[in-house]
Amino acid sequence: MDSFEFCSPTRFAFGRGAESRTGELLRECGGTKALLHYGGGSIRRNGVYDRVTASLEAAGVPWVELGGVQPNPREALVREGIALARREKVDFILAVGGGSVIDSAKAIAFGTLYDGDFTDYAFGKDAKVRRPVPAALPVGTVLTIAAAGSEGSCNSIISLGPEKLKRTITGDRLRPRFSVLNPELTFTLPAYQTACGLSDMFAHVVERYFTQTERVTATDELCEAVMRTVVQEGSAVMANPLDYDARANVMWAGTVAHNNVCGVGRAQDWASHGIEHELSALYDCAHGAGLAVVMPAWMDYVKDAGIGRFARFAERVWGVAPVASPEGMADEGIARYRAWLKSIGMPLTFAELGARPEDIPLLAANLHLNGNTLGAFKPLSEADVREILKLAV
Amino acid sequence: MDSFEFCSPTRFAFGRGAESRTGELLRECGGTKALLHYGGGSIRRNGVYDRVTASLEAAGVPWVELGGVQPNPREALVREGIALARREKVDFILAVGGGSVIDSAKAIAFGTLYDGDFTDYAFGKDAKVRRPVPAALPVGTVLTIAAAGSEGSCNSIISLGPEKLKRTITGDRLRPRFSVLNPELTFTLPAYQTACGLSDMFAHVVERYFTQTERVTATDELCEAVMRTVVQEGSAVMANPLDYDARANVMWAGTVAHNNVCGVGRAQDWASHGIEHELSALYDCAHGAGLAVVMPAWMDYVKDAGIGRFARFAERVWGVAPVASPEGMADEGIARYRAWLKSIGMPLTFAELGARPEDIPLLAANLHLNGNTLGAFKPLSEADVREILKLAV
Repeated sequence: MDSFEFCSPTRFAFGRGAESRTGELLRECGGTKALLHYGGGSIRRNGVYDRVTASLEAAGVPWVELGGVQPNPREALVREGIALARREKVDFILAVGGGSVIDSAKAIAFGTLYDGDFTDYAFGKDAKVRRPVPAALPVGTVLTIAAAGSEGSCNSIISLGPEKLKRTITGDRLRPRFSVLNPELTFTLPAYQTACGLSDMFAHVVERYFTQTERVTATDELCEAVMRTVVQEGSAVMANPLDYDARANVMWAGTVAHNNVCGVGRAQDWASHGIEHELSALYDCAHGAGLAVVMPAWMDYVKDAGIGRFARFAERVWGVAPVASPEGMADEGIARYRAWLKSIGMPLTFAELGARPEDIPLLAANLHLNGNTLGAFKPLSEADVREILKLAV
Repeated sequence: MDSFEFCSPTRFAFGRGAESRTGELLRECGGTKALLHYGGGSIRRNGVYDRVTASLEAAGVPWVELGGVQPNPREALVREGIALARREKVDFILAVGGGSVIDSAKAIAFGTLYDGDFTDYAFGKDAKVRRPVPAALPVGTVLTIAAAGSEGSCNSIISLGPEKLKRTITGDRLRPRFSVLNPELTFTLPAYQTACGLSDMFAHVVERYFTQTERVTATDELCEAVMRTVVQEGSAVMANPLDYDARANVMWAGTVAHNNVCGVGRAQDWASHGIEHELSALYDCAHGAGLAVVMPAWMDYVKDAGIGRFARFAERVWGVAPVASPEGMADEGIARYRAWLKSIGMPLTFAELGARPEDIPLLAANLHLNGNTLGAFKPLSEADVREILKLAV
């Protein structure tokens, strides 16, 4: 078990009608004027906008607003938000939406207080610097999509420039001060978007679970607990989108999957996320869908680097009987993972995703590994990445 | 799944040598002068005192100190601490020790800022008020015993008056700002104290796990994950007290067991803790030892109120094959729980604990139920409590 530091300070208000507490929570965090940040028009159509703004009014919190966040959120809107937040002297950023809206809000929260350009702290493929942000305005969230875990995480992923290069800004200062989680707000999500969320949250645990660090029993057990919950309750949600308890378990699992309580004490991988980001950058596909294509292929490619861990994954997460060889168990576990993804409507191949095999060299090159490696379970070269993408075709 | 609010803001610094960061962490939390609070002489003998104070010196943090915290910490020392903290104008309480030291430190942190008497907020048997404390000085901890979970919890339990009535002070303001967890600091604990800690942390999950609230899959899974970890790695610690990884997994499991991530979304029980507090108040026995006597007896008595949950406990935590009847599985699960407690050296009976059967009426009466009930899985009358204690004889 490795040494670690862990801090997940977000106050979670969970349950039916919780969005009516937004104004009160914002006040308790010291906010006096908010930038209300959101995406398209869905929160206006489904009444969330009205309930949240009524709550702000009731708490006496004035606000300005900036909508229009797109999936894979863009640098340009972050810059617009920073300018608006400064001009209007807001002291709190309130995100109402899913992971893209929250990530955009976090970048605005940092950029508003930072004297330089916010992309100075964006790292990823060809990082300028890899360091946590020193300060940020407080962020609160009202979550409408259970998927990205950004409501409890310390990260913000923004697509930079016309190439839409996905870069990460990080630091505990970006963790939301509060997050409102009302499972009912996810009732009306399209099935495909719900499934993309399930794929994403499951992948967040997989990235932490596959490790070469030994004897982290507590974290292993927590990972398996969350993965089983996502599979069981996720399938229940797909069968009945209005099942409150299923939506609730999925929503909370999605948060726990990514606040890093499932990751402490060991090396984490994150190669599949790195590879997927190139897919969603190039094709603007949903992140969860891209992960459904990449991650099982990654598993096929790296399993021999730790077949025992894959056998455990098969047994503990998928209920594969521990009678077969480790290799057989590993293959069966990966097969069941693919079958579950397919059952919830996720793509498994390049063709289903709308990706082109002829782009594989470009996708791998876009990682800008420059001779470095990607991932920790089995460090991958650019050639390895191409092989994984071929397996995903 | 019930609505809930959850906030666990403590920064955990985990690993070998982490206590050398105490001063730096205290500074980061804004502390400029500390009250260093501890128990007996063990931290002086084992070098922890020297390393922590060296770290304070290096960070330029002056401190005053107050040792002498006893197990089942007393009101009188809390009052002494409050007077000292006010006189010396400290702005941070640093607890170095186990749950008793941390609980005492939390009470001082509250009492120092509160104009009235700190026991105004102590509730329990005959509560004056049941409300969270409005404010407290920040608390940091350097944990030396993996057991109580106070390093991440919102509670402080103090023994009041000459009767040593155990009362709880609560509120998120009491959650430590940081907690230093170095598993090596627990290497030299006597075996009995280590085992009491294992019993205590396991019980913290049991109190949350046995519920009538349905369909809280995420929390159920997390509970089972932590219980399995405590059993597996706890047994490893008993076999080899110097096994770092075992100590590390136990220490982190003890924190996760009680920061309430294992409790959200449902009614919790806490009857066994209530009953046990009367045992440790009357006999000054170790809390974990008292729980080992009370909790299996509680299980025997309440199992019919939810036999399916007990069958699940048997299967998921103790590996009982799901072939027998639910009743048979439940009994086997409870039997294995008792066997594990015995294997780590815990008492299972009144005689082994040093308790007297003739005190049973007094122990039950001391709960001051006044016609109210205790617990949620099966609400217990005073007569029920007497029956449970008889089962524990």
